[in-house]
Amino acid sequence: MMQLLLISNSTMPGEAYLDYPKHEIKKFLGDSVKRALFIPYAAVTFSFDEYEQKVGERFSELGFEIKGIHRYDDPVKAVREAEAIVVGGGNTWQLVRMMHEQNLMPEIKKRVEEGVPYIGWSAGSNVACPYLKTTNDMPIVDPLGFDCCGMIPFQINPHYLDANPEGHGGETREQRIEEFLEANKEIFVAGLREGTMFKLADGKLSLIGSRSCRIFKHGEVPVELTEKDDLTFLMK
Amino acid sequence: MMQLLLISNSTMPGEAYLDYPKHEIKKFLGDSVKRALFIPYAAVTFSFDEYEQKVGERFSELGFEIKGIHRYDDPVKAVREAEAIVVGGGNTWQLVRMMHEQNLMPEIKKRVEEGVPYIGWSAGSNVACPYLKTTNDMPIVDPLGFDCCGMIPFQINPHYLDANPEGHGGETREQRIEEFLEANKEIFVAGLREGTMFKLADGKLSLIGSRSCRIFKHGEVPVELTEKDDLTFLMK
Repeated sequence: MMQLLLISNSTMPGEAYLDYPKHEIKKFLGDSVKRALFIPYAAVTFSFDEYEQKVGERFSELGFEIKGIHRYDDPVKAVREAEAIVVGGGNTWQLVRMMHEQNLMPEIKKRVEEGVPYIGWSAGSNVACPYLKTTNDMPIVDPLGFDCCGMIPFQINPHYLDANPEGHGGETREQRIEEFLEANKEIFVAGLREGTMFKLADGKLSLIGSRSCRIFKHGEVPVELTEKDDLTFLMK
Repeated sequence: MMQLLLISNSTMPGEAYLDYPKHEIKKFLGDSVKRALFIPYAAVTFSFDEYEQKVGERFSELGFEIKGIHRYDDPVKAVREAEAIVVGGGNTWQLVRMMHEQNLMPEIKKRVEEGVPYIGWSAGSNVACPYLKTTNDMPIVDPLGFDCCGMIPFQINPHYLDANPEGHGGETREQRIEEFLEANKEIFVAGLREGTMFKLADGKLSLIGSRSCRIFKHGEVPVELTEKDDLTFLMK
């Protein structure tokens, strides 16, 4: 049974890196996992080693070891042997490009369907979706295709944001999602606000965090759902 | 000699549509142009007809007629016969996709190099660049390639924005552009703030508007340039 922890963002302004989701990460991985495979490919302006170290420090506090996939000669084999898979945020376009180049998407999906726990934040939550298409990131490279892992059948928009900065005339996030829905009528989009995450466990999808998520579908009025709601309908 | 008017955004908050750039549009097109070809393909949540009408109303005030390319049986022929070309904002991804499908990019470039005036705003400024890669829009469709017209050799980031809304932890625009530069080291990026535009005329590139633009290049400290500066170095 699939186990997913899909986190909006690593860090709340003014807090330490990966601080707010750390207790959920610990609960989610539980006692059976010792070492997780870390995919650092979304790092653009800093190295994969630096990224591995930064995430490793937080995970080691929680009692888990992290090893970056960039250290393996055979990344597909690394996925096949992973006890847990962790995909960090950064630039979604570079992440997707490297995952396509190394053919990781179908392997990750297969492992996760077999029950291997998957944790992603920001870009790492985005690649769990069917498509890259609801990222907020700048398309700095050709992703070599817009398909992603598709472990969930809906799209997440991480870092979901209600308003523009004052005096800014560009599209709001809601307007951008409405454009997505116009071109992609059959699919739900979940605006996942900072400080919140989705958890799939025991076949049930729920929201964790004090802010609601905003669920969009073409032709329907967006709805706000909270920790108290069962979100499992999004998995159908 | 190429003539370009590349506008950051159509509308300032609280103002009428295409109001702030209208005098520059009138001066730019001058007396020789009567009718301009309008490319409305960036419209997603409203129709091409509605878009043509909205832009047509403003242009007719200025003494110009607009005709949407979607009314022509042969869009390439429409470009070949245009007196001026106007490309409106909206979703850059859909715009680029449709321009690729209809093979308009090389035809527009050719016409503009022959001296046909080109006006774009937002997505319409983006497609004058070498690549789609510095858009802010959500990638709602596969663009069928990241190349754009390449009438200028640098990238514009329209609606350039200095800060995030308060309390938001996502990347700033500057951080996103730094990621672009890491993956695209040889190219300048111009952050074009709302209410401003670039004009290329008589072989000279200048900024119009009271706010400065921010020029980025890999390994260099970003600089702020104003109306008083000669920006022609960006064309080399």
